[in-house]
Amino acid sequence: MSSTIFIQTPFQSKSLNKSLNTHFVPSFKLPVSLSFKPRTAAFSKRVHIRAGLIEPDGGKLVDLHVSEPERELKKREAASLPKVKLTPIDVQWVHVLSEGWASPLTGFMRESEFLQTLHFNSLRLDDGSFVNMSVPIVLAIDDLQKASIGESDRVALLDSDDKLIAILTDIEIYKHPKEERIARTWGTTVPGLPYVEETITNAGNWLIGGDLEVIAPIKYNDGLDRFRLSPVELRKEFERRNADAVFAFQLRNPVHNGHALLMTDTRRRLLEMGYKNPILLLHPLGGYTKADDVPLSWRMKQHEKVLEDGVLDPETTVVSIFPSPMHYAGPTEVQWHAKARINAGANFYIVGRDPAGMGHPVEKRDLYDADHGKKVLSMAPGLERLNILPFRVAAYDKTQGKMAFFDPSRAQDFLFISGTKMRTLAKNKENPPAGFMCPGGWEVLVEYYASLTPSDNDRIAQPVAA
Amino acid sequence: MSSTIFIQTPFQSKSLNKSLNTHFVPSFKLPVSLSFKPRTAAFSKRVHIRAGLIEPDGGKLVDLHVSEPERELKKREAASLPKVKLTPIDVQWVHVLSEGWASPLTGFMRESEFLQTLHFNSLRLDDGSFVNMSVPIVLAIDDLQKASIGESDRVALLDSDDKLIAILTDIEIYKHPKEERIARTWGTTVPGLPYVEETITNAGNWLIGGDLEVIAPIKYNDGLDRFRLSPVELRKEFERRNADAVFAFQLRNPVHNGHALLMTDTRRRLLEMGYKNPILLLHPLGGYTKADDVPLSWRMKQHEKVLEDGVLDPETTVVSIFPSPMHYAGPTEVQWHAKARINAGANFYIVGRDPAGMGHPVEKRDLYDADHGKKVLSMAPGLERLNILPFRVAAYDKTQGKMAFFDPSRAQDFLFISGTKMRTLAKNKENPPAGFMCPGGWEVLVEYYASLTPSDNDRIAQPVAA
Repeated sequence: MSSTIFIQTPFQSKSLNKSLNTHFVPSFKLPVSLSFKPRTAAFSKRVHIRAGLIEPDGGKLVDLHVSEPERELKKREAASLPKVKLTPIDVQWVHVLSEGWASPLTGFMRESEFLQTLHFNSLRLDDGSFVNMSVPIVLAIDDLQKASIGESDRVALLDSDDKLIAILTDIEIYKHPKEERIARTWGTTVPGLPYVEETITNAGNWLIGGDLEVIAPIKYNDGLDRFRLSPVELRKEFERRNADAVFAFQLRNPVHNGHALLMTDTRRRLLEMGYKNPILLLHPLGGYTKADDVPLSWRMKQHEKVLEDGVLDPETTVVSIFPSPMHYAGPTEVQWHAKARINAGANFYIVGRDPAGMGHPVEKRDLYDADHGKKVLSMAPGLERLNILPFRVAAYDKTQGKMAFFDPSRAQDFLFISGTKMRTLAKNKENPPAGFMCPGGWEVLVEYYASLTPSDNDRIAQPVAA
Repeated sequence: MSSTIFIQTPFQSKSLNKSLNTHFVPSFKLPVSLSFKPRTAAFSKRVHIRAGLIEPDGGKLVDLHVSEPERELKKREAASLPKVKLTPIDVQWVHVLSEGWASPLTGFMRESEFLQTLHFNSLRLDDGSFVNMSVPIVLAIDDLQKASIGESDRVALLDSDDKLIAILTDIEIYKHPKEERIARTWGTTVPGLPYVEETITNAGNWLIGGDLEVIAPIKYNDGLDRFRLSPVELRKEFERRNADAVFAFQLRNPVHNGHALLMTDTRRRLLEMGYKNPILLLHPLGGYTKADDVPLSWRMKQHEKVLEDGVLDPETTVVSIFPSPMHYAGPTEVQWHAKARINAGANFYIVGRDPAGMGHPVEKRDLYDADHGKKVLSMAPGLERLNILPFRVAAYDKTQGKMAFFDPSRAQDFLFISGTKMRTLAKNKENPPAGFMCPGGWEVLVEYYASLTPSDNDRIAQPVAA
């Protein structure tokens, strides 16, 4: 594997190769940079630089795949078991669990884990310590499925094509308190929450937990599987690059120069702090997203262009897909996004304004206070080892003709390019102000919106968060 | 102070004196008794018996009263401060905070404590350890009050008669996210939650946190203040009695023989475990309760009769009032009930079916799963030191003619006397089955319901939880 994840991809480009083994030098200087807020007393003076990557939660990465020699045996066993059909989002969770993103979880949550997640956003381990776990990873079944399982202590999990995905063992079936799950996870029960409507409202009244035995690694055959590196593979890649710090950037939107600005600035600051080789994990979310988000395939094309145009340095950047579905649960979900990246080897996590947030479905406001995400993240049990890097919102600085961190003392100099504004521009094939996004990346967006039918476009209210 | 808290009360009775220095022997043997579920590894074999009472959360009990010599100074200072009017429930919370029930909290929550409570039901201390804190203890103000406070860093808190209660110092004003607070605390946003309608729905859009300087101990002048022992006073009483275990029983309902059964059985079990002098803290909640609960004054009369009738042993029982208002927030609130009792010196906590629960306001079911309370309590961060004593539901055993723990294998032998059933009986001045409640206690209930107007009676749907 070469120094950038993009090397072996269909998006492979000349400019990527050109920039190999060179360090990208940002073409601008920043008036305002990251605010590094130490999390705990241990970090109050300076970040301790340690050898090796951060340990996964629970001490070792969970791997729930059955070994290759066992596969046929498991398949034969599954044939005689009660069957549960998985939705595509359920399969994404099997993927997440199977590779250890949710370590130390070993399968869909049993009631004890579900309740701890709902009430405490964390799980207590046998030694009394806590790991963070903020979103329920659960599997719903209905009355009929429950009846069909009867007294069996294991079930076979099939995808929508009846392909065997996994066996769930030592199962526990318990009530699915939907209203309570929604209220405690989202902090609201308002209609119109995308993940709720997609996966909970019409789901069964029971949850089934247990340990997973996953028959084979989950693949999507969408041309993007090669980007779906597991935590083990990411850790190997970071080690291969001799990373002494890994900083993760979660995103589910096209990358604009405001994002790029803070990623490059983070690296600069880490070097100043004494790290020799900080590596960026640019980690777009690849699971379920709501209808008005830009689809993964287009986002990946756009990210490729951003690297191609030299906005980010491929030498110090790993681009990979995070297989989790999106909850849009704001301060609750951002903890999951951070925790999963610990398991992938990241010890720094960049958090922006209103992470994992969205507009309130019925009121004219954001669903969450824009500052709660980073506050909750910095206080969350089980994330003590992670360095949280909050950043201020970036906007287009008209005086400099580029994206910069917003300076409230000269608010009139800044232009906020909202999702709606960006969509209107891209739909009309107009250009944003020079310096908002690299031209290659912008072209991908124009192409994406052009590919939509008019009715699709009407659906899209907020394609890109600020 | 003599050996029972009731000794110096208006409810003083001959039978109480008679039973002094004698141990009450239960008149029945139980087919089923408490299930002692060890909480942590340390308790997995047997409970460790230690000298002295359990330490309060944070190591020492908070006392927020100003010293007597300072009072006049504080009153003069308060005269020039912006004023905030407290509701009667706000005053109850000042009371709770002032005596250290919520130790180590030193006043109404600032945003950091509020967010930790909502998301994690616990607060992280400077040393990295956690204390439990599951319900927000906050003070709401409206836009006008916020404007009147301006840049002041302290405010005077007045009761509804404009009497100075406290000064709140080093204040922080932050948004009151009502919907999110309700959803995360109650796990629902359904209309009809009593505490929500009483204190949140019409409250201001801001919360004001800070440290309390309470001018004088809170008194209610209702004839019951003498029963409102502070955690310091309770600890002194337990020490005076040489308690080597204190087991707390929270209640907000009349005591029937099912309750008495499990309290006496708990003591028996603690003696079997090797404790020499386990003391029961019978601790009725004295703050806000919903309209259809039996009012505190009647409950106290009823509790007195129960001791008078010899159902509980005054020698080993301390009856005192817990000044907290009631949230009816089930599994979230039961943690608060338990945590506050640690601060009062209890190291055992009895938890029943559906603690702090109520019927769903609009659906025909309980708001919470009846088992979630004890499960959540046994997993709660910060309550590791507390021994949780879950008990099975008691019902009237027709074969024995007395209250006994319900045995599902002979369900037909048991009669569940619901709140509605009990109210109907008491309203009609009929008697419950012999052995359900001591006659003196029952008479108090009959008297209470007789004192209500017919319209009051219509309001009362569920006066007594099972």
